[in-house]
Amino acid sequence: MITSTGNQKVKRLVNLKKKRKARDEEGVFLVEGIRMFREVPAGRLAEVYVSDSFYNKEGSTVGRVLGGSRIRTEILSDQVYAYVSDTKTPQGVLCVVRQKMYTLAQVAGGERAHVLVLDNLQDPGNMGTVIRTAEGAGVTGIIMSSDCVDVHHPKTIRSTMGSVYRMPLYRTEDIAGAVRWMKERGIHTYAAHLDGMLSYDEPDYTNPCAFFIGNEGNGLREEIAAMADSYIRIPMEGQVESLNAAIASAVLMFEAARQRRQQ
Amino acid sequence: MITSTGNQKVKRLVNLKKKRKARDEEGVFLVEGIRMFREVPAGRLAEVYVSDSFYNKEGSTVGRVLGGSRIRTEILSDQVYAYVSDTKTPQGVLCVVRQKMYTLAQVAGGERAHVLVLDNLQDPGNMGTVIRTAEGAGVTGIIMSSDCVDVHHPKTIRSTMGSVYRMPLYRTEDIAGAVRWMKERGIHTYAAHLDGMLSYDEPDYTNPCAFFIGNEGNGLREEIAAMADSYIRIPMEGQVESLNAAIASAVLMFEAARQRRQQ
Repeated sequence: MITSTGNQKVKRLVNLKKKRKARDEEGVFLVEGIRMFREVPAGRLAEVYVSDSFYNKEGSTVGRVLGGSRIRTEILSDQVYAYVSDTKTPQGVLCVVRQKMYTLAQVAGGERAHVLVLDNLQDPGNMGTVIRTAEGAGVTGIIMSSDCVDVHHPKTIRSTMGSVYRMPLYRTEDIAGAVRWMKERGIHTYAAHLDGMLSYDEPDYTNPCAFFIGNEGNGLREEIAAMADSYIRIPMEGQVESLNAAIASAVLMFEAARQRRQQ
Repeated sequence: MITSTGNQKVKRLVNLKKKRKARDEEGVFLVEGIRMFREVPAGRLAEVYVSDSFYNKEGSTVGRVLGGSRIRTEILSDQVYAYVSDTKTPQGVLCVVRQKMYTLAQVAGGERAHVLVLDNLQDPGNMGTVIRTAEGAGVTGIIMSSDCVDVHHPKTIRSTMGSVYRMPLYRTEDIAGAVRWMKERGIHTYAAHLDGMLSYDEPDYTNPCAFFIGNEGNGLREEIAAMADSYIRIPMEGQVESLNAAIASAVLMFEAARQRRQQ
Protein backbone atom coordinates (compact mmCIF):
# COMPACT_ATOMS: atom_id res chain seq x y z
CA MET A 1 0.00 0.00 0.00
CA ILE A 2 1.24 3.48 -0.90
CA THR A 3 0.99 5.76 2.13
CA SER A 4 2.99 8.83 1.11
CA THR A 5 2.00 11.65 -1.21
CA GLY A 6 5.71 11.96 -1.99
CA ASN A 7 5.69 8.58 -3.75
CA GLN A 8 6.75 8.80 -7.41
CA LYS A 9 3.64 6.95 -8.64
CA VAL A 10 1.44 9.39 -6.74
CA LYS A 11 3.28 12.35 -8.21
CA ARG A 12 2.77 10.95 -11.69
CA LEU A 13 -0.99 10.47 -11.11
CA VAL A 14 -1.34 14.06 -9.87
CA ASN A 15 0.50 15.22 -12.97
CA LEU A 16 -1.86 13.23 -15.19
CA LYS A 17 -4.78 14.80 -13.36
CA LYS A 18 -3.55 18.37 -13.63
CA LYS A 19 -1.56 18.59 -16.84
CA ARG A 20 -2.74 18.06 -20.36
CA LYS A 21 0.84 17.83 -21.52
CA ALA A 22 1.50 14.91 -19.17
CA ARG A 23 -1.63 13.12 -20.43
CA ASP A 24 -0.79 13.67 -24.08
CA GLU A 25 2.85 12.65 -23.69
CA GLU A 26 1.81 9.32 -22.20
CA GLY A 27 -1.30 9.04 -24.40
CA VAL A 28 -3.54 8.30 -21.41
CA PHE A 29 -6.15 9.91 -19.18
CA LEU A 30 -7.63 9.28 -15.72
CA VAL A 31 -11.08 7.92 -15.01
CA GLU A 32 -12.72 7.81 -11.58
CA GLY A 33 -15.65 5.93 -10.12
CA ILE A 34 -16.92 2.37 -10.25
CA ARG A 35 -19.30 2.87 -13.16
CA MET A 36 -16.76 4.40 -15.50
CA PHE A 37 -14.20 1.79 -14.37
CA ARG A 38 -16.63 -0.98 -15.37
CA GLU A 39 -17.18 0.55 -18.80
CA VAL A 40 -13.54 0.99 -19.88
CA PRO A 41 -13.35 -0.70 -23.30
CA ALA A 42 -11.32 -3.89 -23.52
CA GLY A 43 -7.67 -3.24 -24.27
CA ARG A 44 -7.68 0.39 -23.17
CA LEU A 45 -7.39 -0.10 -19.41
CA ALA A 46 -3.75 0.41 -18.40
CA GLU A 47 -3.66 0.64 -14.59
CA VAL A 48 -6.05 0.56 -11.62
CA TYR A 49 -5.66 2.31 -8.25
CA VAL A 50 -8.02 1.87 -5.30
CA SER A 51 -8.30 3.39 -1.87
CA ASP A 52 -7.67 1.14 1.10
CA SER A 53 -11.27 1.27 2.31
CA PHE A 54 -12.69 0.75 -1.20
CA TYR A 55 -10.48 -2.32 -1.59
CA ASN A 56 -11.70 -3.77 1.68
CA LYS A 57 -15.35 -3.36 0.65
CA GLU A 58 -15.23 -3.84 -3.12
CA GLY A 59 -11.99 -5.65 -3.81
CA SER A 60 -13.90 -8.61 -5.24
CA THR A 61 -15.78 -6.35 -7.67
CA VAL A 62 -12.47 -5.00 -8.92
CA GLY A 63 -11.19 -8.55 -9.36
CA ARG A 64 -14.31 -9.52 -11.30
CA VAL A 65 -14.04 -6.54 -13.65
CA LEU A 66 -10.37 -7.24 -14.30
CA GLY A 67 -11.11 -10.91 -14.90
CA GLY A 68 -8.12 -12.80 -16.24
CA SER A 69 -6.24 -9.69 -17.36
CA ARG A 70 -2.72 -9.04 -16.16
CA ILE A 71 -3.51 -5.56 -14.89
CA ARG A 72 -2.45 -5.17 -11.29
CA THR A 73 -4.42 -3.19 -8.74
CA GLU A 74 -2.40 -0.83 -6.59
CA ILE A 75 -3.75 0.18 -3.18
CA LEU A 76 -3.42 3.75 -1.87
CA SER A 77 -4.13 4.78 1.72
CA ASP A 78 -7.43 6.69 1.95
CA GLN A 79 -5.49 9.90 2.56
CA VAL A 80 -3.27 9.46 -0.47
CA TYR A 81 -6.26 8.47 -2.57
CA ALA A 82 -8.10 11.67 -1.59
CA TYR A 83 -4.97 13.62 -2.58
CA VAL A 84 -4.92 12.04 -6.03
CA SER A 85 -8.67 12.21 -6.62
CA ASP A 86 -10.33 15.03 -8.54
CA THR A 87 -13.64 14.72 -6.64
CA LYS A 88 -14.67 15.97 -3.23
CA THR A 89 -16.21 12.65 -2.18
CA PRO A 90 -14.06 10.06 -3.97
CA GLN A 91 -15.58 6.68 -4.71
CA GLY A 92 -12.20 5.06 -4.29
CA VAL A 93 -11.34 3.64 -7.72
CA LEU A 94 -9.27 5.37 -10.37
CA CYS A 95 -7.89 4.04 -13.64
CA VAL A 96 -5.35 5.08 -16.20
CA VAL A 97 -6.97 4.60 -19.61
CA ARG A 98 -5.34 4.77 -23.05
CA GLN A 99 -6.44 7.62 -25.30
CA LYS A 100 -7.95 6.62 -28.62
CA MET A 101 -7.46 8.58 -31.83
CA TYR A 102 -9.77 8.63 -34.81
CA THR A 103 -9.27 9.80 -38.39
CA LEU A 104 -11.41 12.41 -40.07
CA ALA A 105 -12.90 9.66 -42.23
CA GLN A 106 -13.98 7.73 -39.13
CA VAL A 107 -15.64 10.82 -37.66
CA ALA A 108 -17.33 12.24 -40.75
CA GLY A 109 -17.01 9.65 -43.48
CA GLY A 110 -20.17 7.56 -43.11
CA GLU A 111 -23.24 7.66 -45.33
CA ARG A 112 -25.32 8.85 -42.40
CA ALA A 113 -22.81 11.46 -41.22
CA HIS A 114 -24.17 13.63 -38.41
CA VAL A 115 -21.21 15.64 -37.26
CA LEU A 116 -20.61 18.29 -34.62
CA VAL A 117 -17.83 20.84 -35.20
CA LEU A 118 -16.74 22.57 -31.98
CA ASP A 119 -14.84 25.82 -32.37
CA ASN A 120 -12.88 26.92 -29.29
CA LEU A 121 -15.24 25.42 -26.69
CA GLN A 122 -13.68 26.26 -23.31
CA ASP A 123 -15.71 24.88 -20.42
CA PRO A 124 -14.69 21.33 -19.39
CA GLY A 125 -18.16 20.49 -18.05
CA ASN A 126 -19.83 21.78 -21.21
CA MET A 127 -17.47 19.72 -23.35
CA GLY A 128 -18.31 16.54 -21.43
CA THR A 129 -22.03 17.25 -21.61
CA VAL A 130 -21.79 17.83 -25.38
CA ILE A 131 -20.04 14.48 -25.88
CA ARG A 132 -22.65 12.65 -23.76
CA THR A 133 -25.55 14.38 -25.54
CA ALA A 134 -24.00 13.72 -28.95
CA GLU A 135 -23.89 9.98 -28.33
CA GLY A 136 -27.53 10.07 -27.23
CA ALA A 137 -28.55 11.97 -30.36
CA GLY A 138 -26.77 9.56 -32.69
CA VAL A 139 -24.00 11.93 -33.74
CA THR A 140 -21.42 10.00 -35.77
CA GLY A 141 -18.42 12.02 -34.63
CA ILE A 142 -17.12 15.32 -33.26
CA ILE A 143 -14.49 17.53 -34.85
CA MET A 144 -12.86 20.06 -32.53
CA SER A 145 -10.44 22.92 -33.05
CA SER A 146 -7.11 22.43 -31.31
CA ASP A 147 -7.85 25.34 -28.96
CA CYS A 148 -10.89 23.61 -27.47
CA VAL A 149 -10.57 22.52 -23.85
CA ASP A 150 -8.88 19.12 -23.48
CA VAL A 151 -11.39 16.26 -23.78
CA HIS A 152 -9.28 14.34 -21.27
CA HIS A 153 -9.67 16.97 -18.54
CA PRO A 154 -10.98 15.11 -15.44
CA LYS A 155 -14.12 17.23 -15.30
CA THR A 156 -14.86 16.61 -18.98
CA ILE A 157 -14.34 12.88 -18.58
CA ARG A 158 -16.73 12.82 -15.60
CA SER A 159 -19.41 14.80 -17.46
CA THR A 160 -19.33 12.41 -20.42
CA MET A 161 -20.63 9.60 -18.17
CA GLY A 162 -18.71 7.13 -20.32
CA SER A 163 -19.56 8.52 -23.76
CA VAL A 164 -15.91 9.55 -24.15
CA TYR A 165 -15.11 5.84 -24.61
CA ARG A 166 -17.46 5.56 -27.55
CA MET A 167 -17.80 8.89 -29.39
CA PRO A 168 -15.34 9.26 -32.30
CA LEU A 169 -13.40 12.49 -31.67
CA TYR A 170 -11.07 14.29 -34.06
CA ARG A 171 -8.97 17.23 -32.95
CA THR A 172 -7.30 19.43 -35.55
CA GLU A 173 -5.36 22.66 -35.98
CA ASP A 174 -6.83 22.90 -39.46
CA ILE A 175 -10.53 23.13 -38.83
CA ALA A 176 -11.00 24.90 -42.17
CA GLY A 177 -9.40 21.93 -43.91
CA ALA A 178 -11.71 19.52 -42.10
CA VAL A 179 -14.73 21.58 -43.15
CA ARG A 180 -13.56 21.59 -46.79
CA TRP A 181 -13.08 17.81 -46.58
CA MET A 182 -16.70 17.42 -45.47
CA LYS A 183 -18.10 19.81 -48.07
CA GLU A 184 -16.27 17.99 -50.87
CA ARG A 185 -18.06 14.83 -49.76
CA GLY A 186 -21.48 16.44 -49.87
CA ILE A 187 -22.00 16.95 -46.16
CA HIS A 188 -24.21 20.01 -45.72
CA THR A 189 -22.68 22.34 -43.13
CA TYR A 190 -24.77 24.52 -40.79
CA ALA A 191 -23.41 27.30 -38.59
CA ALA A 192 -25.39 28.05 -35.43
CA HIS A 193 -25.28 31.82 -35.71
CA LEU A 194 -27.26 34.71 -34.28
CA ASP A 195 -27.36 36.23 -37.80
CA GLY A 196 -29.04 33.12 -39.21
CA MET A 197 -32.19 33.86 -41.25
CA LEU A 198 -33.20 30.22 -41.28
CA SER A 199 -34.89 28.75 -38.23
CA TYR A 200 -33.05 25.57 -37.17
CA ASP A 201 -36.16 23.43 -37.68
CA GLU A 202 -36.58 24.31 -41.37
CA PRO A 203 -33.72 22.44 -43.10
CA ASP A 204 -33.80 18.74 -43.89
CA TYR A 205 -31.18 16.99 -41.77
CA THR A 206 -31.86 13.48 -43.02
CA ASN A 207 -28.95 13.79 -45.44
CA PRO A 208 -25.33 13.98 -44.19
CA CYS A 209 -24.97 17.13 -42.12
CA ALA A 210 -22.63 18.95 -39.76
CA PHE A 211 -23.38 21.61 -37.12
CA PHE A 212 -20.81 24.26 -36.16
CA ILE A 213 -20.93 25.37 -32.52
CA GLY A 214 -18.83 28.26 -31.23
CA ASN A 215 -17.20 29.44 -28.03
CA GLU A 216 -19.38 30.03 -24.94
CA GLY A 217 -18.81 33.77 -24.84
CA ASN A 218 -17.98 34.79 -28.39
CA GLY A 219 -19.77 32.30 -30.61
CA LEU A 220 -18.22 31.02 -33.83
CA ARG A 221 -15.13 32.65 -35.31
CA GLU A 222 -16.16 34.50 -38.44
CA GLU A 223 -13.75 32.64 -40.72
CA ILE A 224 -15.27 29.31 -39.62
CA ALA A 225 -18.88 30.50 -39.77
CA ALA A 226 -18.26 31.91 -43.27
CA MET A 227 -17.44 28.44 -44.59
CA ALA A 228 -20.85 27.02 -43.69
CA ASP A 229 -23.42 26.31 -46.42
CA SER A 230 -26.20 27.77 -44.24
CA TYR A 231 -26.57 29.88 -41.12
CA ILE A 232 -29.25 28.64 -38.75
CA ARG A 233 -30.76 30.27 -35.73
CA ILE A 234 -32.70 28.94 -32.76
CA PRO A 235 -35.67 31.30 -32.39
CA MET A 236 -35.69 32.78 -28.90
CA GLU A 237 -38.39 34.27 -26.74
CA GLY A 238 -37.95 36.88 -24.01
CA GLN A 239 -34.73 38.80 -23.76
CA VAL A 240 -32.42 35.82 -24.15
CA GLU A 241 -29.63 36.63 -26.61
CA SER A 242 -28.06 33.21 -26.84
CA LEU A 243 -28.15 29.76 -25.32
CA ASN A 244 -25.42 27.91 -23.49
CA ALA A 245 -23.26 26.11 -26.10
CA ALA A 246 -24.16 22.64 -24.81
CA ILE A 247 -27.87 23.51 -24.85
CA ALA A 248 -27.75 24.98 -28.36
CA SER A 249 -25.95 21.94 -29.72
CA ALA A 250 -28.44 19.61 -27.99
CA VAL A 251 -31.41 21.37 -29.60
CA LEU A 252 -29.81 21.02 -33.06
CA MET A 253 -28.65 17.42 -32.65
CA PHE A 254 -32.01 16.23 -31.34
CA GLU A 255 -33.85 18.01 -34.16
CA ALA A 256 -31.69 16.05 -36.62
CA ALA A 257 -32.36 12.84 -34.65
CA ARG A 258 -36.11 13.54 -34.66
CA GLN A 259 -36.17 14.05 -38.44
CA ARG A 260 -34.11 10.92 -39.05
CA ARG A 261 -36.46 8.80 -36.90
CA GLN A 262 -39.42 9.96 -38.96
CA GLN A 263 -37.79 9.16 -42.29
CA MET B 1 -13.40 53.12 0.72
CA ILE B 2 -13.61 49.89 2.71
CA THR B 3 -10.15 48.37 3.09
CA SER B 4 -10.64 45.67 5.72
CA THR B 5 -12.21 42.23 5.35
CA GLY B 6 -13.21 42.58 9.01
CA ASN B 7 -15.65 45.38 8.14
CA GLN B 8 -19.26 44.56 9.10
CA LYS B 9 -20.59 45.35 5.63
CA VAL B 10 -18.04 43.00 4.11
CA LYS B 11 -18.98 40.26 6.56
CA ARG B 12 -22.63 40.66 5.61
CA LEU B 13 -21.87 40.42 1.87
CA VAL B 14 -19.86 37.24 2.40
CA ASN B 15 -22.78 35.83 4.37
CA LEU B 16 -25.16 36.70 1.54
CA LYS B 17 -22.80 34.99 -0.87
CA LYS B 18 -22.41 31.82 1.14
CA LYS B 19 -25.64 31.31 3.04
CA ARG B 20 -29.09 30.72 1.64
CA LYS B 21 -30.57 31.48 5.05
CA ALA B 22 -28.97 34.93 5.08
CA ARG B 23 -30.32 35.65 1.58
CA ASP B 24 -33.82 34.49 2.42
CA GLU B 25 -33.95 36.34 5.73
CA GLU B 26 -33.13 39.61 3.99
CA GLY B 27 -35.09 38.69 0.85
CA VAL B 28 -32.16 39.59 -1.42
CA PHE B 29 -29.42 38.01 -3.52
CA LEU B 30 -26.08 39.06 -5.00
CA VAL B 31 -25.40 39.77 -8.64
CA GLU B 32 -21.95 40.29 -10.16
CA GLY B 33 -20.70 41.79 -13.41
CA ILE B 34 -21.48 44.83 -15.47
CA ARG B 35 -24.01 43.19 -17.75
CA MET B 36 -26.17 41.76 -14.99
CA PHE B 37 -25.84 45.05 -13.09
CA ARG B 38 -27.21 46.92 -16.10
CA GLU B 39 -30.18 44.55 -16.40
CA VAL B 40 -31.43 44.69 -12.79
CA PRO B 41 -35.15 45.55 -13.10
CA ALA B 42 -36.19 48.99 -11.86
CA GLY B 43 -37.08 49.00 -8.19
CA ARG B 44 -35.24 45.79 -7.33
CA LEU B 45 -31.71 47.18 -7.05
CA ALA B 46 -30.91 47.72 -3.38
CA GLU B 47 -27.15 48.39 -3.12
CA VAL B 48 -24.08 48.62 -5.38
CA TYR B 49 -20.46 47.81 -4.49
CA VAL B 50 -17.50 48.38 -6.79
CA SER B 51 -13.79 47.67 -6.61
CA ASP B 52 -11.46 50.62 -6.44
CA SER B 53 -9.95 49.97 -9.86
CA PHE B 54 -13.35 49.36 -11.47
CA TYR B 55 -14.58 52.65 -10.05
CA ASN B 56 -11.61 54.52 -11.48
CA LYS B 57 -12.23 53.08 -14.93
CA GLU B 58 -16.01 52.70 -15.06
CA GLY B 59 -17.34 55.01 -12.37
CA SER B 60 -19.20 57.07 -14.95
CA THR B 61 -20.92 53.94 -16.32
CA VAL B 62 -22.14 53.11 -12.83
CA GLY B 63 -23.42 56.65 -12.42
CA ARG B 64 -25.26 56.46 -15.74
CA VAL B 65 -26.94 53.15 -14.85
CA LEU B 66 -28.02 54.47 -11.46
CA GLY B 67 -29.33 57.67 -13.05
CA GLY B 68 -31.31 59.78 -10.63
CA SER B 69 -31.87 56.98 -8.12
CA ARG B 70 -30.82 57.42 -4.51
CA ILE B 71 -28.80 54.22 -4.45
CA ARG B 72 -25.30 54.91 -3.22
CA THR B 73 -22.23 53.20 -4.57
CA GLU B 74 -19.79 51.88 -2.01
CA ILE B 75 -16.15 51.40 -2.97
CA LEU B 76 -14.13 48.40 -1.79
CA SER B 77 -10.36 48.09 -2.13
CA ASP B 78 -9.45 45.59 -4.86
CA GLN B 79 -8.30 43.13 -2.23
CA VAL B 80 -11.53 43.34 -0.25
CA TYR B 81 -13.56 43.13 -3.46
CA ALA B 82 -11.76 39.93 -4.47
CA TYR B 83 -12.56 38.53 -1.01
CA VAL B 84 -16.26 39.25 -1.40
CA SER B 85 -16.51 38.15 -5.05
CA ASP B 86 -17.63 34.67 -6.08
CA THR B 87 -15.58 34.67 -9.28
CA LYS B 88 -11.90 34.04 -9.90
CA THR B 89 -11.46 37.08 -12.14
CA PRO B 90 -13.93 39.61 -10.71
CA GLN B 91 -15.26 42.30 -13.01
CA GLY B 92 -15.49 44.69 -10.06
CA VAL B 93 -19.19 45.43 -9.67
CA LEU B 94 -21.58 43.64 -7.34
CA CYS B 95 -25.15 44.46 -6.40
CA VAL B 96 -27.64 43.44 -3.78
CA VAL B 97 -30.94 42.76 -5.56
CA ARG B 98 -34.37 42.17 -4.03
CA GLN B 99 -35.87 38.69 -4.51
CA LYS B 100 -39.19 38.56 -6.30
CA MET B 101 -41.93 36.08 -5.47
CA TYR B 102 -44.63 34.82 -7.81
CA THR B 103 -47.89 32.99 -7.16
CA LEU B 104 -48.78 29.65 -8.68
CA ALA B 105 -51.36 31.45 -10.84
CA GLN B 106 -48.67 33.74 -12.24
CA VAL B 107 -46.45 30.78 -13.08
CA ALA B 108 -49.01 28.37 -14.49
CA GLY B 109 -52.26 30.27 -14.88
CA GLY B 110 -52.09 31.63 -18.41
CA GLU B 111 -53.98 30.33 -21.43
CA ARG B 112 -50.69 29.44 -23.09
CA ALA B 113 -49.19 27.80 -20.01
CA HIS B 114 -45.86 26.10 -20.73
CA VAL B 115 -44.54 25.09 -17.35
CA LEU B 116 -41.45 23.32 -16.08
CA VAL B 117 -41.68 21.38 -12.80
CA LEU B 118 -38.27 20.73 -11.25
CA ASP B 119 -38.09 17.97 -8.66
CA ASN B 120 -35.02 18.07 -6.43
CA LEU B 121 -32.61 19.56 -8.98
CA GLN B 122 -29.28 19.88 -7.17
CA ASP B 123 -26.60 21.42 -9.37
CA PRO B 124 -26.46 25.24 -9.17
CA GLY B 125 -25.06 25.62 -12.69
CA ASN B 126 -27.71 23.27 -14.11
CA MET B 127 -30.44 25.26 -12.37
CA GLY B 128 -29.21 28.52 -13.85
CA THR B 129 -28.91 27.01 -17.33
CA VAL B 130 -32.46 25.63 -17.07
CA ILE B 131 -33.83 29.08 -16.17
CA ARG B 132 -31.95 30.74 -19.06
CA THR B 133 -33.07 28.05 -21.53
CA ALA B 134 -36.65 28.24 -20.28
CA GLU B 135 -36.88 31.94 -21.02
CA GLY B 136 -35.49 31.33 -24.51
CA ALA B 137 -38.04 28.58 -25.15
CA GLY B 138 -40.98 30.72 -24.05
CA VAL B 139 -41.71 28.83 -20.83
CA THR B 140 -44.32 30.75 -18.82
CA GLY B 141 -42.99 29.76 -15.40
CA ILE B 142 -41.05 27.23 -13.35
CA ILE B 143 -42.33 25.33 -10.31
CA MET B 144 -39.66 23.83 -8.08
CA SER B 145 -39.74 21.53 -5.09
CA SER B 146 -38.43 23.13 -1.91
CA ASP B 147 -35.46 20.74 -1.87
CA CYS B 148 -34.13 22.06 -5.19
CA VAL B 149 -30.87 24.00 -5.02
CA ASP B 150 -31.40 27.69 -4.16
CA VAL B 151 -32.10 29.76 -7.27
CA HIS B 152 -30.25 32.63 -5.59
CA HIS B 153 -26.99 30.68 -5.28
CA PRO B 154 -24.28 32.88 -6.89
CA LYS B 155 -23.42 30.21 -9.45
CA THR B 156 -27.06 29.78 -10.42
CA ILE B 157 -27.54 33.54 -10.77
CA ARG B 158 -24.47 33.76 -13.00
CA SER B 159 -25.61 30.86 -15.22
CA THR B 160 -29.03 32.46 -15.79
CA MET B 161 -27.33 35.36 -17.63
CA GLY B 162 -30.12 37.64 -16.42
CA SER B 163 -33.11 35.33 -17.00
CA VAL B 164 -33.56 35.07 -13.23
CA TYR B 165 -34.87 38.65 -13.32
CA ARG B 166 -37.60 37.72 -15.76
CA MET B 167 -38.64 34.08 -15.38
CA PRO B 168 -41.59 33.58 -12.99
CA LEU B 169 -40.44 31.08 -10.34
CA TYR B 170 -42.57 29.35 -7.73
CA ARG B 171 -41.02 27.27 -4.97
CA THR B 172 -43.19 24.95 -2.91
CA GLU B 173 -43.07 22.22 -0.29
CA ASP B 174 -46.28 20.85 -1.77
CA ILE B 175 -45.31 19.97 -5.29
CA ALA B 176 -48.16 17.42 -5.44
CA GLY B 177 -50.61 20.21 -4.62
CA ALA B 178 -49.19 22.40 -7.37
CA VAL B 179 -49.50 19.54 -9.86
CA ARG B 180 -53.15 18.93 -8.83
CA TRP B 181 -53.81 22.66 -9.24
CA MET B 182 -52.52 22.50 -12.81
CA LYS B 183 -54.41 19.32 -13.70
CA GLU B 184 -57.68 20.80 -12.44
CA ARG B 185 -57.13 23.67 -14.87
CA GLY B 186 -56.61 21.36 -17.83
CA ILE B 187 -52.84 21.61 -18.09
CA HIS B 188 -51.57 18.34 -19.52
CA THR B 189 -48.66 17.06 -17.42
CA TYR B 190 -45.74 15.07 -18.88
CA ALA B 191 -43.11 13.25 -16.85
CA ALA B 192 -39.70 12.84 -18.50
CA HIS B 193 -39.16 9.22 -17.53
CA LEU B 194 -36.98 6.38 -18.74
CA ASP B 195 -40.06 4.10 -18.58
CA GLY B 196 -41.96 6.37 -20.98
CA MET B 197 -43.53 4.50 -23.91
CA LEU B 198 -44.28 7.72 -25.75
CA SER B 199 -41.49 9.44 -27.64
CA TYR B 200 -41.31 13.10 -26.56
CA ASP B 201 -42.02 14.33 -30.10
CA GLU B 202 -45.38 12.53 -30.42
CA PRO B 203 -47.71 14.55 -28.12
CA ASP B 204 -49.28 17.86 -29.10
CA TYR B 205 -47.82 20.58 -26.87
CA THR B 206 -49.74 23.48 -28.40
CA ASN B 207 -52.27 23.25 -25.56
CA PRO B 208 -51.30 24.16 -21.97
CA CYS B 209 -48.63 21.73 -20.82
CA ALA B 210 -46.14 21.07 -18.05
CA PHE B 211 -42.94 19.00 -18.08
CA PHE B 212 -41.62 17.27 -14.94
CA ILE B 213 -37.82 17.04 -14.69
CA GLY B 214 -36.12 15.06 -11.93
CA ASN B 215 -32.90 15.03 -9.99
CA GLU B 216 -29.59 14.70 -11.88
CA GLY B 217 -28.70 11.31 -10.45
CA ASN B 218 -32.00 9.70 -9.50
CA GLY B 219 -34.57 11.14 -11.89
CA LEU B 220 -38.10 11.97 -10.78
CA ARG B 221 -39.43 10.78 -7.44
CA GLU B 222 -41.98 8.03 -8.11
CA GLU B 223 -44.80 9.82 -6.29
CA ILE B 224 -44.34 12.88 -8.49
CA ALA B 225 -43.92 10.92 -11.73
CA ALA B 226 -47.09 8.92 -10.90
CA MET B 227 -49.18 12.11 -10.94
CA ALA B 228 -48.34 12.90 -14.57
CA ASP B 229 -50.93 12.38 -17.31
CA SER B 230 -48.26 10.89 -19.61
CA TYR B 231 -44.75 9.53 -19.39
CA ILE B 232 -42.49 10.67 -22.21
CA ARG B 233 -39.06 9.49 -23.20
CA ILE B 234 -36.30 11.02 -25.31
CA PRO B 235 -35.19 8.21 -27.66
CA MET B 236 -31.49 7.63 -27.22
CA GLU B 237 -28.82 6.09 -29.43
CA GLY B 238 -25.63 4.39 -28.34
CA GLN B 239 -25.23 3.31 -24.73
CA VAL B 240 -26.45 6.56 -23.17
CA GLU B 241 -28.90 5.82 -20.36
CA SER B 242 -30.00 9.35 -19.63
CA LEU B 243 -29.27 12.96 -20.48
CA ASN B 244 -28.12 15.73 -18.19
CA ALA B 245 -31.24 17.30 -16.60
CA ALA B 246 -30.67 20.69 -18.24
CA ILE B 247 -30.21 19.04 -21.64
CA ALA B 248 -33.32 16.86 -21.29
CA SER B 249 -35.46 19.83 -20.28
CA ALA B 250 -34.07 21.88 -23.20
CA VAL B 251 -35.01 19.21 -25.73
CA LEU B 252 -38.58 19.08 -24.36
CA MET B 253 -39.07 22.85 -24.05
CA PHE B 254 -37.77 23.54 -27.55
CA GLU B 255 -39.97 20.80 -29.02
CA ALA B 256 -42.99 22.56 -27.45
CA ALA B 257 -41.71 25.91 -28.78
CA ARG B 258 -41.25 24.43 -32.26
CA GLN B 259 -44.79 23.05 -32.32
CA ARG B 260 -46.24 26.33 -31.08
CA ARG B 261 -44.44 28.33 -33.77
CA GLN B 262 -45.93 26.08 -36.46
CA GLN B 263 -49.48 26.45 -35.18
